[in-house]
Amino acid sequence: MPSENHQQTERNAPGRRRDPDIDEAILTTTLDHLGRIGFTAMSIAGIARDAGVTKPAIYRRWSCKADLATAALSRLQAAEGSPSTGSLRGDLIALLDNFQGSLTRPQGLAMIGMLLSEESRMPELIAHFRERITTQRRAMFREAFERAQPDELPPGFDVDAAVNMLIGSLYAKYIADGSIPKRWAARVVDTLLPQSET
Amino acid sequence: MPSENHQQTERNAPGRRRDPDIDEAILTTTLDHLGRIGFTAMSIAGIARDAGVTKPAIYRRWSCKADLATAALSRLQAAEGSPSTGSLRGDLIALLDNFQGSLTRPQGLAMIGMLLSEESRMPELIAHFRERITTQRRAMFREAFERAQPDELPPGFDVDAAVNMLIGSLYAKYIADGSIPKRWAARVVDTLLPQSET
Repeated sequence: MPSENHQQTERNAPGRRRDPDIDEAILTTTLDHLGRIGFTAMSIAGIARDAGVTKPAIYRRWSCKADLATAALSRLQAAEGSPSTGSLRGDLIALLDNFQGSLTRPQGLAMIGMLLSEESRMPELIAHFRERITTQRRAMFREAFERAQPDELPPGFDVDAAVNMLIGSLYAKYIADGSIPKRWAARVVDTLLPQSET
Repeated sequence: MPSENHQQTERNAPGRRRDPDIDEAILTTTLDHLGRIGFTAMSIAGIARDAGVTKPAIYRRWSCKADLATAALSRLQAAEGSPSTGSLRGDLIALLDNFQGSLTRPQGLAMIGMLLSEESRMPELIAHFRERITTQRRAMFREAFERAQPDELPPGFDVDAAVNMLIGSLYAKYIADGSIPKRWAARVVDTLLPQSET
């Protein structure tokens, strides 16, 4: 039984060192349950079962369901660094393509939907997501605009409005059509910055 | 007891005419439960209780929970007509202000979140929402662009990308910050159409 093996490994480990395979199994399963079942309906017992670990193995790591969900959400963090293609247009397209990849993976947007729908019951969950995930991604967009050459942007350009339009165009397209076309990133960037070279 | 009065009214009504007050109570309560509890967890019994009607009163009108949810979602439809302020900028700001009003009302975005999170279980619900609600709103944006004067838009302007950026900027701002600033509409429209008069 995989849970017993995991327990064994843990007991053999010196001190409080944790087996990263167990962490990985628990957090991956938690993300899956969050997206498919939602925070309110998911259970530690169900996660333990699907991750092949025991409930105590989870409670040794995270004190409650909210802590566990928060840890799992941290995994959605944009791991990529800020791209540097040499042009504002290229950097924005790279950032949007990357974001499109994370939104369109299984449960990608369902997860954000779950956070929005649970907001009144579990405000900490979406607060954590905002603080750790959206803030980080938006900072990379802002940095791309800050690196822009003077001829790439009109004076007084509203970077905050622009970042929200670029990111938001993916949400809106998915909500409307259930999919996002290939080359979407280039289309929105060229509509926002029509004077940029193509 | 309100449910008894409602029943009475129904029985007194000739033929199959329905009491619009009962419809109203049931649909309003269903929308509230959809947003707060979600489709999977909500129940006809709970809706009957909170609407002050009997379960049969609901089943006489809608055959199942999915039918009821679909009817309730239809109420979110944009009732407003297409604005005609005389300029593209004015029309887009009016449309966005309107959309902002519907997104920021209680449960507004939670409802969309619920639909996204339930998509794998209940694809009909979001399909209905797409067909009846988002399509109608987006058509009004597209019409505003089609009415534009030649000097209001650069040649070859990508209307679909623009509509998604404008609408999506509200989703992105809310997902990131939990609120949408006043005068947001004018900021995004002026960033998208920087050459428009202010």
